Formats: sequence, C-alpha cells, structure tokens
Amino acid sequence: MSEITGVVLDAMGGDHAPAEMVKGAVDAINRSRQVKVFLVGREETVKHELEKYTYDKNRIQVVNASEVIETAEPPVNAIRRKKDSSIVVGMKLVKSGEADAFVSAGSSGAILVGGQTLIGRIKGIERPPLAPLIPTAKGASLLIDCGANVDARPSHLVQFARMGSIYMEHVIGIKNPKAAIVNIGAEEEKGNALVKETFPLLKKLTDINFIGSIEARDIPYGKADVIVSEAFAGNVILKLYEGLGAVLIGKIKEGMMSTLRSKIGAFLVKPALKETVKQFDAAEYGGAPLLGLKGLVVKTHGSAKAKEISNSIIQCITFKEQRINEKIMACIQADSGSDE
Amino acid sequence: MSEITGVVLDAMGGDHAPAEMVKGAVDAINRSRQVKVFLVGREETVKHELEKYTYDKNRIQVVNASEVIETAEPPVNAIRRKKDSSIVVGMKLVKSGEADAFVSAGSSGAILVGGQTLIGRIKGIERPPLAPLIPTAKGASLLIDCGANVDARPSHLVQFARMGSIYMEHVIGIKNPKAAIVNIGAEEEKGNALVKETFPLLKKLTDINFIGSIEARDIPYGKADVIVSEAFAGNVILKLYEGLGAVLIGKIKEGMMSTLRSKIGAFLVKPALKETVKQFDAAEYGGAPLLGLKGLVVKTHGSAKAKEISNSIIQCITFKEQRINEKIMACIQADSGSDE
Repeated sequence: MSEITGVVLDAMGGDHAPAEMVKGAVDAINRSRQVKVFLVGREETVKHELEKYTYDKNRIQVVNASEVIETAEPPVNAIRRKKDSSIVVGMKLVKSGEADAFVSAGSSGAILVGGQTLIGRIKGIERPPLAPLIPTAKGASLLIDCGANVDARPSHLVQFARMGSIYMEHVIGIKNPKAAIVNIGAEEEKGNALVKETFPLLKKLTDINFIGSIEARDIPYGKADVIVSEAFAGNVILKLYEGLGAVLIGKIKEGMMSTLRSKIGAFLVKPALKETVKQFDAAEYGGAPLLGLKGLVVKTHGSAKAKEISNSIIQCITFKEQRINEKIMACIQADSGSDE
Repeated sequence: MSEITGVVLDAMGGDHAPAEMVKGAVDAINRSRQVKVFLVGREETVKHELEKYTYDKNRIQVVNASEVIETAEPPVNAIRRKKDSSIVVGMKLVKSGEADAFVSAGSSGAILVGGQTLIGRIKGIERPPLAPLIPTAKGASLLIDCGANVDARPSHLVQFARMGSIYMEHVIGIKNPKAAIVNIGAEEEKGNALVKETFPLLKKLTDINFIGSIEARDIPYGKADVIVSEAFAGNVILKLYEGLGAVLIGKIKEGMMSTLRSKIGAFLVKPALKETVKQFDAAEYGGAPLLGLKGLVVKTHGSAKAKEISNSIIQCITFKEQRINEKIMACIQADSGSDE
C-alpha cells in the first residue's frame, strides 16, 4: 500500500471560502486515493458545505477553528493573537506531524509569518522563498522568490537557486533544470549591486545547472526553468504577468467584437483560443510552495477556486513522495562550512 | 513664423542603420515643417542612402563622423576614445546649441554616458532617468526609470516623479497626471527599504498628483500615468512587457492556425486584431527620452525602423515647444534648499 499524504486545507481563507475550498477538497480526494484532507475552519459552516457532496468520509476530516485571519490584518499580530484561527490551528497540525502540508488562499503575510514561526525553517535555510510556477511558451518556469523576502542577501538567492532546482527536477520532472538570475542585461558585469555579488556565487555552484543572467524579455519564452530573483523584482514579474495577460486577452476579445466580420471570425476561433488561454492560466499550476520549511506550505491565489485548490492539494503528494525536504536538507548540509 | 527644432539623428546606431535611420529622417521632415535633421555618420554611406529619396535639401544636413560605437563596447571607454563617432559628434552639436535634440538607436550605455558627460545634467538634477512610454488599456504611461540608474536613492526617485509628471502633462497632454510608485502591495507600509523611504517624500510633494503605490498587476490597466520605479525593476517591467506581449500574441496566432475552423475564423478577425496589436506596439510611441539633460536625448529601440525613428524626431518638436527643460529647471530650483 502506498503512503497517504495528509494535507491541511484552510477552509476560511480566500475570496471564495468556504464554498470553493470545500469543493476543491472533495475534488482532490476523488482524483487521488493517496491523499487525506484536514478541513480547518468553523466546523458548522464547513460541515454545512460538505453536505452538498458525497465523498469518502474517512479521507476528509473537519477540524474546528473559530477565528479567521483577514487579509488586511498585520500578520505578526494576527498569528500571535488569533490562536484559534484556521491558519494557526492548521499549521500546528503540520508542526505536530499529524499532517504533511498546509494549503491556504488566505493572507500571504500571515502564511509567511506562520510558516516561519509555527512550522519553522529547515536547519541551515536562511529564508523561505515563495515560488510559483509561471506559464511560458514551453510550459512553466519556477519564479523564486516572488515576494517573501524583500531586500534579500546574495546567500539567500544562492539557496533559492538550489531549492528551486530541486523542486523543478523532482516535483515538476525537468531533468537538470536550467537556473538563471533575473538581470537587466545578459553580461556578467551588468546588474545592480545584489546581482553582481550573487552572480559569481551561483557560477561556482556545482550542484545546479546555472546558465547565467536572464532578461525579463526572455522569461516568457521559457529560456530558464528556475528564475532566481530578489522578492521585489519577482513580485513585479508575477503580477505583471497576471495583469498584462488579462489586459491583452481582454483587448483581443474587444477587437474581435468590433465588426460583424470579426464577430463571425471570433465564433470560429473561440474553441481553439480557449486552449491557448488555458495554457497561460495560473490556476492550472496550483499554488506557490513556500520552500525550506519543515513541512510543505502552499499559498494559492486569493481568488483561487476549486480547480486551483484541488491542483494544489494534488501537488503536495508529489512533494512528499519525492522527499523534497530531505533533498533540500542534504543539499544544504553538504554545503555547510564550505563557503560564506 | 514658428520655430524650427534641430534634431541630430545618429545614422549609424541600431540594427537597421543606416537605411531605416535615413528613411525615418526623410519621413519626419515630410511630416512636419518645423524640424531640421542633422544626419550624423559616415558621409558617403549616408549620402548614398539619401539619394533614394526626394526631400527638402535645406532640412537634412549630413554631418560626417568616421567612427561607430558598437553595442558591445564598454561605454565609458568608447565615449572617451571614439571622438569621431556618430554619438560623440552628434551630442556635441547639441552641447554647442546648433541642435536641440539627439536621437539614437545605438548603444544604450554609450548614450547614457555621452548624455551625462558631453551634454551634461540640468543644474540640480542628480541622475537622468530613461523614460519610455508603455502601452496600457487606456493609452500609455511613462515608465521612469527603465534602466539608467540602478541602486538609485530616494531623492532620485523624487526627481523622477517630478520630471515624469512634467513630461506627461506637457508633451503627452495629460492634465494633472497621476504618479504612482511601483510597489509589492497597495499599502504605505509595504515595500522594500527604498520604497518605504521614498513613499513619504513623494506624499509630501505638492507639485505632482501622487496617488500612492501601484502593483505591477495594475500597470497595464493604466491606473497611473507616471510609473516611478528604480531602474532594475523598471527594466524588468519594460522587458517583460515586450516579451510577454510577443509570446502571448504568438501563442494566439498559433492557436488560430490549429484547426481548419479556426483558420477561417483567423482570416475574418485579422483586420480587427491588427488594430489591437498596433495599440500595444511600442514603435507607435517613439523612443524613450533621457530626462534632466541640457538638451533632449532620445533612445529608441535597437531594432527601431523608420516609423519609430520618425515618431521620435517628431516628439522632439513638442519637447522644445513646450520648453520642458525650462519647466524642469523651474521645478527643481523652486525646491532647492527646501528638503533633503
């Protein structure tokens, strides 16, 4: 019998909680027999939602948490004070080993703070980066870090490159993934102070496939699998991806509706374009893992619906099966004492 | 009789020099009677290109420059050593007052260095930012700085916001343009150290319409007219715009060609979509001004063709007519001694 992955789902976080969270949980256990979901939130509300579905009752367990952390709350305070919130209660299930992973569409800040203070970092990891997959012409690349640690130091970026490479190889299945650092020119001497300091450190690593700098222009073409970036620029990349994609697709739809001729054409191209748009839909890839913690924490979009939630839960199975955290530990420990 | 704007065009810079440069110059003088172009480059080559056209010979003057600065050359060295290059000879015409503006599709680095050392900064301006217009759902926004000054200080960003606001109001014609600082959240307390320090300085300015932070997601929607950013993030925004736009449009074309049905549809929507794609074509907006210099310097894309060159030359007329540099000087001097 294969192993079961226990995933805590924050039933109260996100714009579409609890309905879409519960739907996503039911969908996930129907897709895979290897997962069990702990639905954490207000018990009555969650159970009421669950009544809509028929599902294997042994594989969804409702855990009561009476409080909810709102997106606007200052995260450190919220984690400290709301001891009975879905985030705090859920993360403690991971800390205690009852569950393997925690998935939430709730407050990014609270998830970052909770992940570090309640679950804790793997020994040797300086900062845990948030690493979403972003769509490219070739498939998807991992953007690491997209917002967890602004004003990071070179040694942090080095760890991001390593953890990102492990993730892409063993969770996404890309052999010897190409890692690159976001820069404003292709040459080694280009960049800001952080990139100039980090570049030679990445260059001398032997355990990753570092291909040098990547200009933002080349990211959508899929020229690298692991896109290493300080969180501020990474966040700009992630959000511009979302905004520009939406505006361009909106403009194209508008253009197609502008004349009678184009309206007829639009009717004919629609099925084919649906596929294209889907390839650039972030929901297809599930949430973003917060790497380097003792346990897996996944942050989905605040706007996540059942599909993204279900995909995020399924993602956790591979993460556990591939023993990603053991690989991260081995890689960091092999290095300790060698440089910096 | 109205004033004539003298524009120096680097005939040797860019992927399509000299042919497209010369074509752009001829096009510009045919579009406006208020401009005279100095075509700087290898005289024989330039004259040979010019023979293809009929044009008013009083309004294009060929100025010989025997050397060319290549894109790969270290800029400081190139400007110092190649005294007879098109960039050095051309910029000296602006310095001496014989011409008002300098336009080039050549080496960004050499243009930045030359602009500062040969033409010089307006008194009080700490750093000259490169400020391209980027397409949005509403029209275009000014992205300032997109790569001239990495690791900038808060006082630099404050000057960028002011210069950008003057440019958008008087060159592009947007009344009371909305200025925002690129950030990773909408709240004032979010951001990296630079943004946190700069935000309150921008907030207390009374001469610009500062609307607070802008997340990268909202840039393509046109939520601000002046997008203030440190050069590294600005460069990432500009280049991701180019790359993502190209990949998405490419994917959509590919999608349209995937079935017989969609091919017929594509034929019908094509004319309407051409308009949409044109709205997101950077060439429509001409080049990016390097603001804050004693004279106007405009950097076009390296891949610029005649249309972008011609648009860039025409842009210089408004810049001179609106006395942008006098407005920048007045604004900076009004401020001197008041803060920082």
